[in-house]
Amino acid sequence: MPNPTAAMLVIGDEILSGRTRDSNMHFLAGELTRIGIDLKEVRVVSDDRAAIVSALNALSAAFDTVFTSGGIGPTHDDITADCVAAAFGVGIDVRDDARAILKAHYDRAGTELNAARLRMARIPDGAALIDNPVSAAPGFSLKNVHVLAGVPSVFQAMVASVLPMLVGGAPMLSQTLRVNRGEGDVAGPLARVAEAFPDLSIGSYPFQKDGAYGTHVVVRGVDGAQVDAAMVRLAADLGA
Amino acid sequence: MPNPTAAMLVIGDEILSGRTRDSNMHFLAGELTRIGIDLKEVRVVSDDRAAIVSALNALSAAFDTVFTSGGIGPTHDDITADCVAAAFGVGIDVRDDARAILKAHYDRAGTELNAARLRMARIPDGAALIDNPVSAAPGFSLKNVHVLAGVPSVFQAMVASVLPMLVGGAPMLSQTLRVNRGEGDVAGPLARVAEAFPDLSIGSYPFQKDGAYGTHVVVRGVDGAQVDAAMVRLAADLGA
Repeated sequence: MPNPTAAMLVIGDEILSGRTRDSNMHFLAGELTRIGIDLKEVRVVSDDRAAIVSALNALSAAFDTVFTSGGIGPTHDDITADCVAAAFGVGIDVRDDARAILKAHYDRAGTELNAARLRMARIPDGAALIDNPVSAAPGFSLKNVHVLAGVPSVFQAMVASVLPMLVGGAPMLSQTLRVNRGEGDVAGPLARVAEAFPDLSIGSYPFQKDGAYGTHVVVRGVDGAQVDAAMVRLAADLGA
Repeated sequence: MPNPTAAMLVIGDEILSGRTRDSNMHFLAGELTRIGIDLKEVRVVSDDRAAIVSALNALSAAFDTVFTSGGIGPTHDDITADCVAAAFGVGIDVRDDARAILKAHYDRAGTELNAARLRMARIPDGAALIDNPVSAAPGFSLKNVHVLAGVPSVFQAMVASVLPMLVGGAPMLSQTLRVNRGEGDVAGPLARVAEAFPDLSIGSYPFQKDGAYGTHVVVRGVDGAQVDAAMVRLAADLGA
């Protein structure tokens, strides 16, 4: 049975303008690989309603699970929750349980729960809240879409809240062979091994060290015996 | 007149599995912003023909210019050139000028131009080559799609070759105001300034330092006088 699939939607002008370097994609990719969910596509779009809704529709239809990051803060350009409601055709309003979480948090800090902060309690109808142990304002899950914050520490904490709810697949195993030859020299043997092991993914990543060319060959798959067999065959064929 | 638009397509299993952290997106975003081209969307897909062709079709139709990175090396999973040919419905074969570039490069290095390396001379019909001063194997431009290597040093050199051929827009100017108050406190004034300056983009980025909350407010636009005026208004309204 193939592994479950996932996609990610990164929302934010600051990524596309080059102001901020996204780190959530790399984090999520590693976490999903670990539990056997295949991240198949990532899209990055700006804080634009039409772009967000269209990407949500496409990704939630094509993949088992979708994660979004960004656009759930208190300011005028935080429109992700409204876009998710629009994409699924449901209403959205301030919800009592989310408001209570924010009120308790800001009461402790002696900070006013003003209109801007109350925007963060706007939750689409039918969604389940995602715990935010870092800064209280919750994320939420609606159908197969999990809506997370963009701030990396909060994003990571929310991923930790969501992952146990997901059904993973067979964890992907990987082994790496380091070959002191250029990618063009190993490509032929590599293609033949890839053909002999159609269930494995065989990638090659060139490097240059001290002026010499080399290649890391990475074999990935869910069947450990097959991965081992492919590595033995590669080592023999590449004389490594 | 609005600025020209661009999209980027990052191709490679290694990004989606978490093995490799992409850095080309952040680099390209900064370069395009500098010359007044708006990067509107980035997609990351795996080494899968259907996924690549479908993304190429969508992005090349929706945006003025598309950049791809990755998948143009010598191995069996390097299928970007074939996918571009398929997306535009043109043929693809080894081309004499590309072969000559590779032959000269490998002759100098005393390396054989074998069948795998010759794959890098496969160029879709009608494309123009993009110079690769780092490792010779060229990229290419077909219609509004520029096909670049995924290795960051080569990607960056190819971007430098392509940018002078593009018509930029008005460079985006930006100013940042540091406010020692949380995002929820500045959100109200921010929204009012954003409404008063509809041609500007006003973003806010929370930070935490020594236990205190703060916000960086970033005002971006092509009209320097407007950016200045918005900053004056923000400083007054936020008491910064």
